[in-house]
Amino acid sequence: MTDEPSGGDLSRLRQLNALSVLRALRDERPLTLTELAKRTGLSRASTEDVARELLARGWVSELAPAVGTVGRPARRYRFRADAGRILGVDIGGHKILAMVTDLEGVVLNQTRVAVSPRIGRRERLAMLDDCVTTTLAGAGVTPDQIWSTGVASTGLVDGTGNVMLSDSVPEWTGVNLAAHFRRLVPGPVRVENDCKLAALAESWRGVARYAGNVVFLLAGLRTGAGLIIDGKLHRGFGNAAGEIGALPAAGWLRAPQHLYDWLGGGDDVEDVFLAARDGDRTAIRAVRAYIRDIAVGASALVLTLDPELVVIGGGFSRSADVLVEPLRRELDRWCLRTPEIRVSGFGAEGVALGAVRLALEQVEATRYDGKLPVSAI
Amino acid sequence: MTDEPSGGDLSRLRQLNALSVLRALRDERPLTLTELAKRTGLSRASTEDVARELLARGWVSELAPAVGTVGRPARRYRFRADAGRILGVDIGGHKILAMVTDLEGVVLNQTRVAVSPRIGRRERLAMLDDCVTTTLAGAGVTPDQIWSTGVASTGLVDGTGNVMLSDSVPEWTGVNLAAHFRRLVPGPVRVENDCKLAALAESWRGVARYAGNVVFLLAGLRTGAGLIIDGKLHRGFGNAAGEIGALPAAGWLRAPQHLYDWLGGGDDVEDVFLAARDGDRTAIRAVRAYIRDIAVGASALVLTLDPELVVIGGGFSRSADVLVEPLRRELDRWCLRTPEIRVSGFGAEGVALGAVRLALEQVEATRYDGKLPVSAI
Repeated sequence: MTDEPSGGDLSRLRQLNALSVLRALRDERPLTLTELAKRTGLSRASTEDVARELLARGWVSELAPAVGTVGRPARRYRFRADAGRILGVDIGGHKILAMVTDLEGVVLNQTRVAVSPRIGRRERLAMLDDCVTTTLAGAGVTPDQIWSTGVASTGLVDGTGNVMLSDSVPEWTGVNLAAHFRRLVPGPVRVENDCKLAALAESWRGVARYAGNVVFLLAGLRTGAGLIIDGKLHRGFGNAAGEIGALPAAGWLRAPQHLYDWLGGGDDVEDVFLAARDGDRTAIRAVRAYIRDIAVGASALVLTLDPELVVIGGGFSRSADVLVEPLRRELDRWCLRTPEIRVSGFGAEGVALGAVRLALEQVEATRYDGKLPVSAI
Repeated sequence: MTDEPSGGDLSRLRQLNALSVLRALRDERPLTLTELAKRTGLSRASTEDVARELLARGWVSELAPAVGTVGRPARRYRFRADAGRILGVDIGGHKILAMVTDLEGVVLNQTRVAVSPRIGRRERLAMLDDCVTTTLAGAGVTPDQIWSTGVASTGLVDGTGNVMLSDSVPEWTGVNLAAHFRRLVPGPVRVENDCKLAALAESWRGVARYAGNVVFLLAGLRTGAGLIIDGKLHRGFGNAAGEIGALPAAGWLRAPQHLYDWLGGGDDVEDVFLAARDGDRTAIRAVRAYIRDIAVGASALVLTLDPELVVIGGGFSRSADVLVEPLRRELDRWCLRTPEIRVSGFGAEGVALGAVRLALEQVEATRYDGKLPVSAI
């Protein structure tokens, strides 16, 4: 934690008080001191104390009293989502997507560029830098306004932001993305595997929002998984949880071949789904064979964790109408209890939103101990 | 929670204070009030208050001042592990094992009876009752001295103590074990699947004591799994976590057949392991084939959760010397990172010890809100 500029210290108790006040304000409409004290359980004096401090730091703003107020008008406070900016980046095999959001995760600007899995590391990093620069400029934001950055990468990522292993983009193995991003933006940088962050996004504000235990399937040109256990992203001891796809018996390695076989020379997998939707029998058979293979690994995840929910995300989730029913039938075949299946509503943006969430978690973990980007103090 | 006799109420804060004092005393040698206040972070006045109350309830005892104390002698307090008794029962396909322990889980008496998977439900319940009665009598304990009971059963168990599904003992499906035990003992009764409780025992005081994420494999005539995630037993949404064995691709259903094939007509699987240990090539091949199948499901668990530890327990764990190395080689083959493998030291008692732990958790969860067995007040 040497990468956050330091500021004045708050006592631990005041940090916790400040955190509960900020949470109450972020989740609700503007609140008066009386309402804030009630929601946080703090004394009125402590609430006032915290509110004054947060106001001074620019994290909350004061509103005019509500119209029609009788007697002494009560001040109201509002969380200032625009006090800082967040950068979230998704580096996949086939695309780079960068987004700038406010402190509530509302997207202010985003840029997507297509990349080939076959380009080299240096060229990919240069495209990444361009994409970030373009995104910041489009949002009218300078790097020092970014409070925190979250980065999603294809492949396994270790705790220091290093790509340990990338099968889909071989030259990516060994890149230290955290170090690379620290040259672009001054705030803290966290890096995580893309499937894990897509799962985090669903748990944060997606279709898995109220679920404690979730298996998230990233269904696309590659298949991956992210796990939410007890409401939290499960990373595993070596940050390698959810990698069931590496096991041949799970069927994920061979699954896409059924789609490619149908395509012959074509390379837009969407065509198989379109044909299946139109009732083409060979396409329907190819999709079913694909699902039959995917379902073995998915069943292994379900039988292992017994989640309440399976979420389908990733590129193929746009074709969920031809995928979900066959998947449900296969899960019924293997699982003791088939969980509810839901389709992500994030389309291609889920991974980047998860990166934003990761960055926001970092903000929540650090800003209340007084360690804040300079622009925020 | 209608099954615990009620007593006087403590305020929530006092409950928490009492809990931290009890924990400090249970984990350490006898402590003075000054030492207790330091360890718990409570004020001296609160500590004294709690100690007085716990003394009155019989949960702690007061010791004579330490020998050689100068000046005003300081009273010392000790956790009274003998204030109550715990019953733990393991109901397997082939045996019933009951144990009575004190409040620290020290076994005072235990009884083991062999049962056949083929006997009917009524006869099995009668043998269970006999086993429990014998165990209590042998410990010189009457049922009303049992503060809490934990029951491990083969099969899936729901939250109300009902056996939802038992493949190995078909007549067992539908038995409500919690209701059955409430006729035997007055305190709270909790029932859980045997593999889950064996995992809990390892995490409590076995080889997984300091591990956050653990895959426990119950290797025996049947293969099962229990998962510790973030230091806690993972049950799943429908209490069906760890059931990867139901998936044919996991290999667990067919695995024991390699051992039976080698045995021909014999039924003591131990013979294969003995022969393998003696260098019999056909036995070694049979054991390797068994491990090869087990390892597919084990790898699925490891790849899913990325645990720091795999623990081998169950009946076959006594033959760990011929099992662990082949298993490690197979895990190396499939997993991205092979976790450390350890062998349970509990032998056939792990499941029952897990049942004791489950009962102790129930005691910790309830006794501090004043709801205690009559004998304890």
